[in-house]
Amino acid sequence: MAGVAAAGAGALALTHGQATPGTVATELVSDAGGAIPFYGARQAGIVTPAQDRLHFCAFDVITDDKAALVDMLQDWTAAAARMTQGRDAGTFGAVGGSLEAPPDDTGEALGLPASGLTLTIGFGPTLFRNAQGKDRFGIAAKRPAALADLPKFPRDALEDAISGGDIGVQACAHDPQVAVHAIRNLARIGMGKVSVRWSQLGFGRTSSTSTSQATPRNLFGFKDGTRNLKAEEPQLLDEHLWVQQGDGPEWMTGGSYLVTRKIRMLVETWDRSPLAEQQTIIGRDKSEGAPLTGKQEHDEPDFAAQDGEGQPVIPMDSHLRLAHPDQNGGARLLRRGYNFVDGSDGLGRLNAGLFFMAYQRNPHKQFVPVQNNLAKMDALNEYIRHVSSAMFACPPGLLAADDYWGRSLFA
Amino acid sequence: MAGVAAAGAGALALTHGQATPGTVATELVSDAGGAIPFYGARQAGIVTPAQDRLHFCAFDVITDDKAALVDMLQDWTAAAARMTQGRDAGTFGAVGGSLEAPPDDTGEALGLPASGLTLTIGFGPTLFRNAQGKDRFGIAAKRPAALADLPKFPRDALEDAISGGDIGVQACAHDPQVAVHAIRNLARIGMGKVSVRWSQLGFGRTSSTSTSQATPRNLFGFKDGTRNLKAEEPQLLDEHLWVQQGDGPEWMTGGSYLVTRKIRMLVETWDRSPLAEQQTIIGRDKSEGAPLTGKQEHDEPDFAAQDGEGQPVIPMDSHLRLAHPDQNGGARLLRRGYNFVDGSDGLGRLNAGLFFMAYQRNPHKQFVPVQNNLAKMDALNEYIRHVSSAMFACPPGLLAADDYWGRSLFA
Repeated sequence: MAGVAAAGAGALALTHGQATPGTVATELVSDAGGAIPFYGARQAGIVTPAQDRLHFCAFDVITDDKAALVDMLQDWTAAAARMTQGRDAGTFGAVGGSLEAPPDDTGEALGLPASGLTLTIGFGPTLFRNAQGKDRFGIAAKRPAALADLPKFPRDALEDAISGGDIGVQACAHDPQVAVHAIRNLARIGMGKVSVRWSQLGFGRTSSTSTSQATPRNLFGFKDGTRNLKAEEPQLLDEHLWVQQGDGPEWMTGGSYLVTRKIRMLVETWDRSPLAEQQTIIGRDKSEGAPLTGKQEHDEPDFAAQDGEGQPVIPMDSHLRLAHPDQNGGARLLRRGYNFVDGSDGLGRLNAGLFFMAYQRNPHKQFVPVQNNLAKMDALNEYIRHVSSAMFACPPGLLAADDYWGRSLFA
Repeated sequence: MAGVAAAGAGALALTHGQATPGTVATELVSDAGGAIPFYGARQAGIVTPAQDRLHFCAFDVITDDKAALVDMLQDWTAAAARMTQGRDAGTFGAVGGSLEAPPDDTGEALGLPASGLTLTIGFGPTLFRNAQGKDRFGIAAKRPAALADLPKFPRDALEDAISGGDIGVQACAHDPQVAVHAIRNLARIGMGKVSVRWSQLGFGRTSSTSTSQATPRNLFGFKDGTRNLKAEEPQLLDEHLWVQQGDGPEWMTGGSYLVTRKIRMLVETWDRSPLAEQQTIIGRDKSEGAPLTGKQEHDEPDFAAQDGEGQPVIPMDSHLRLAHPDQNGGARLLRRGYNFVDGSDGLGRLNAGLFFMAYQRNPHKQFVPVQNNLAKMDALNEYIRHVSSAMFACPPGLLAADDYWGRSLFA
């Protein structure tokens, strides 16, 4: 640690651009205009290199008519296939239809390229059986065991209005206008069948999902998700990310489960903490993101290492230790979170934090044990608050243009 | 109009990229890493070509100690001068200080370039005399007449908690993480002297402030701000934007007044309106943004033109007509607004709209008559709601490194 501090102290003329070689810069993605294929064995937007911007939306299904819901899912699929390729949401677009009819695209993305847009759909527990216990669509028997409700974790401060949801759609893109446009058009198409339960914008990604991406920083100023699962690790993805045959109902084989948690960060309190305290709470140094026992970001942490006084160099209650697979039966996640600022909190502070999203093969074997561990002991808990929670079963991708979101569940 | 519709109807395979030649695409600004000079006769961030992303913050001053406030403004100025050049907020940066002290930068912008960051400060009416009528800092006599409170407009639905503010800071950048970082560090530096009253993220600019920029689209899907004042029109800027000698107190000469209005858009209702209705409400066609009497975006509207039935082609209650300088004694504005989506509204809809910002020489001669006109008659009123309002006197720029924000007001 002394080395890190000394190196830093010498660099008085730090600039954002020079402080940490290898840190991610604003990525002028070479194919920012490029479209990501919509059809494929997997849904796009999971191992796709994490785009810079997010608009996530959880919908309530407000019809009990299965045929109407299926119709909408077919319409959504057609619109998603178009929009992800940089096209308008519907055949006639924003300006090409009848003057006497509402346009079939809202128009704010006219002139914008596809911008790497991906749309990823998932189905929440309440779609299978709603809050009143009703199986509205005759699919309760298809609910995977892995989609059982999450337990209540210690310190949870969840707000119902921004938790849960029957259907979740993740829109990621390099241009936020494109992500917003996509969600807004799905909401438009779904009018009368779904309503927006909650929606969340994320302005900056906090995770990398590809070895081609540098590790970004969260609003604590630390690199986040260093040990994230990566697209280039197919064996690990089969083990930890993708639902395998025999895991549960066949319609989810090749899919993945998404857990979202809106984590408010009390940044004002954090900002008053000394650098050493921040680093021991995280278990990494702030500059490089190296474990306190190492020098480089990707050095393996040495949890057995002790300081001169016989204390662990990486504290027992540090975030790094508690979240590490070694402390959680080997559990790993594919994280895809985003920084958010939702104005102020009415108490003179920014309403800021991390919109955590993690894909996994089985939340009850992965997210749940890790979060139990963190919620009980993490030194970071003093600075964070989980205010929303949701879970969605995201089926595999669509292979043919006549397939549609949810067919394997509803047909 | 018939021509527009016919041309549109033939283009079945519209893509975002092809629909409207000349429309703005996501601008991969060539100097996205580039720093914009902080010092100059004018504050940056007014006629600076509008950056893509916004974080605006209104602060309450929570100290009555003038010296403490001036100290903070000096610290803010030093931090702003650094951050706009891509440097950390303070001398030792995020990682270069003592381990035993809180860092003097929060760190989330480590590794990011300046990203065109501008920080623009303005002083609100309540800084001169607070809500209790108290002149806390002995500056009430320096309050410009132009900073008199805005009148209440018809249909105003203002929320006090997100209106007003003693000090406003506009952070614009091409990277939202950089804009958020800047505001957050000013809030950190101001701890105990100011608190965050409200803050607003804008994900996409809705105005151009330079002829080098194409006109972007708002969330109604229309091009917005076609007639905006532009940096390349110095005579018009002197007439409409910059405070001139003799206009009021000398400390504002060379500055400008900012009016902000958060305008919620009822996009779900709008999206159900026929294209023809949308176009007559706006007074322009949706594809090109041309006035209904013209073909090109920048064609002059012909307000006298009548259709076959003797009705005005550009309706009397259209937004274009009512906001036009000809209807408002020649009043013009430099608009610098941004699209926003703040999650959902709890009623199943997106909480979306336009964060309107306009700079001008005198709000009571410019914004006020225009807004009175619009609030009374604009056909668009059915689809919008003004939910916040604020006004700030933004002094001229700083010319020397020993000058600081507010010196001419407080010294």
